[in-house]
Amino acid sequence: MNIPEEVKIKEVGPRDGLQNEPEIIPTEEKINWINALSNTGISYIEISSFVHPKWIPQLSDAFEVGRGIIRNPNVTYAALVPNSKGLERALAVGIDEVSVFMSASETHNKKNINKSIADTFPVLKEVAETAKQEGKTVRGYVSTVFGCPYEGDISFNKLLNICDKLFEMGIEELSLGDTVGVADPLQVSRLIKDLSDRYSAQKFALHFHDTRGTAMANVLAAMLEGINTFDASLGGLGGCPYAKGASGNLATDDLVYMLHQMNVNTGVNHHKLIEAAKLIQRSLAKSLPSRQMQLISHEEVSQ
Amino acid sequence: MNIPEEVKIKEVGPRDGLQNEPEIIPTEEKINWINALSNTGISYIEISSFVHPKWIPQLSDAFEVGRGIIRNPNVTYAALVPNSKGLERALAVGIDEVSVFMSASETHNKKNINKSIADTFPVLKEVAETAKQEGKTVRGYVSTVFGCPYEGDISFNKLLNICDKLFEMGIEELSLGDTVGVADPLQVSRLIKDLSDRYSAQKFALHFHDTRGTAMANVLAAMLEGINTFDASLGGLGGCPYAKGASGNLATDDLVYMLHQMNVNTGVNHHKLIEAAKLIQRSLAKSLPSRQMQLISHEEVSQ
Repeated sequence: MNIPEEVKIKEVGPRDGLQNEPEIIPTEEKINWINALSNTGISYIEISSFVHPKWIPQLSDAFEVGRGIIRNPNVTYAALVPNSKGLERALAVGIDEVSVFMSASETHNKKNINKSIADTFPVLKEVAETAKQEGKTVRGYVSTVFGCPYEGDISFNKLLNICDKLFEMGIEELSLGDTVGVADPLQVSRLIKDLSDRYSAQKFALHFHDTRGTAMANVLAAMLEGINTFDASLGGLGGCPYAKGASGNLATDDLVYMLHQMNVNTGVNHHKLIEAAKLIQRSLAKSLPSRQMQLISHEEVSQ
Repeated sequence: MNIPEEVKIKEVGPRDGLQNEPEIIPTEEKINWINALSNTGISYIEISSFVHPKWIPQLSDAFEVGRGIIRNPNVTYAALVPNSKGLERALAVGIDEVSVFMSASETHNKKNINKSIADTFPVLKEVAETAKQEGKTVRGYVSTVFGCPYEGDISFNKLLNICDKLFEMGIEELSLGDTVGVADPLQVSRLIKDLSDRYSAQKFALHFHDTRGTAMANVLAAMLEGINTFDASLGGLGGCPYAKGASGNLATDDLVYMLHQMNVNTGVNHHKLIEAAKLIQRSLAKSLPSRQMQLISHEEVSQ
């Protein structure tokens, strides 16, 4: 089985995981959680989003979180930035990497950021250029790559055009998102093969949601095509915005378990990861949906 | 991606799924559920177990279930049989296929069926021979193949010896079980490769548990090695006997979703499958853990 020896996991729980949680978590608890994550060996944490506070009230304390956390020099701290205004706040708090975002689907992009795809590019370009002038790296999220709740399938040429435009802006890495959790391993394999005709697999991260149970199989399919960077959310925190309460993000703890079993190095300490997951579980006052966290909670109950 | 065009799913929910459920389901409801399963297009259902009623009270009505169901001529109806006594009852109700079982781990075998592995073979041989004389096909379950809660790793030679002995008895297919859900795709891939040196992949079914989130990735790894038969339990019904309440069997509905997305034919109607899952969900008065069933319940709530 030809898979990478090492995989980089980008922890998106504090942003993507938390953003759909209706109960506002106190800033102090977010900081404690991110500090715990910083000590797991994980090398990348997306800590929050600098969108307008009214869009995502849960993340309206992005600045305070960024200022409050203890920085581990081995960790890249990133945040979502929608435009130049958000970038200003992100830069003011000394974020390491800036993530811009758009959708591969015209309708989803319109509903999500109220702009056409064509009108989105100049906004992202301005953010990317300024961020790079400030010495930051820039990451791009492309959502609904594997299917859109409004448009269904997304044409490959449309996606390729978006990738071209974003890479031209100097964006270092694109995270291809299965926003609604409809991807399957064959589709993942083919898409990466097709993209690899133009770009190295190292330029892409894959961002899977486990809404229909395919996330881990999709990871395997992606690894078999040379992908070695995956976004994940600790404990599987994060829902599907189109079916409230359903399973959301691929769980970091489940992913790390599988990778370590396969002798793939992640640099992450699984035990510390579980301890960090327990922290946010206590804050949320509900059990997290990952298989690892479910197993642990039941083991603890039966002990 | 080199995967089979067709996959056969063996529905084990009425036996493996139900056996850990503490609340006894009325026989009539089991019959209705199996009848619904029979009309989904699935070609194989393990309806119960003819172990001594005191071992598994939930399945003590195996005979009544076998007599009560409406047989679809396109479906093979199977049941677990531990010994000649159980076989008598299974034959009396006209079961199509008989499943014998043992463990690849000496300790697990001892704890589970109170015999050494060496002492188990003659018992299974007697069942297999009689069943075949009666014109039945025989399936063998080998559990803890990918790891044992008492012994840890199982040596390949030990497993191979068990396979040899069971095939020599005229058993047609062996279902290799990841009883405690510790398998990973690399391990699955290697094991099948190694077994394929002696036996065709068509002689094996894989039986995964999703206790740690790896089941679907394990299916993909197995398919890539030519395996085209998988056991699964509708709705993910069934627990892990070593951590009560944790996730258990690979879910038929999630598996069928993924396979159909990959254009792998299963013969199963996904919609009818979900309807059958709702039936048993009502009987159990709790929501089933599969991603599909979770998604549906949340979609229905939010509508």
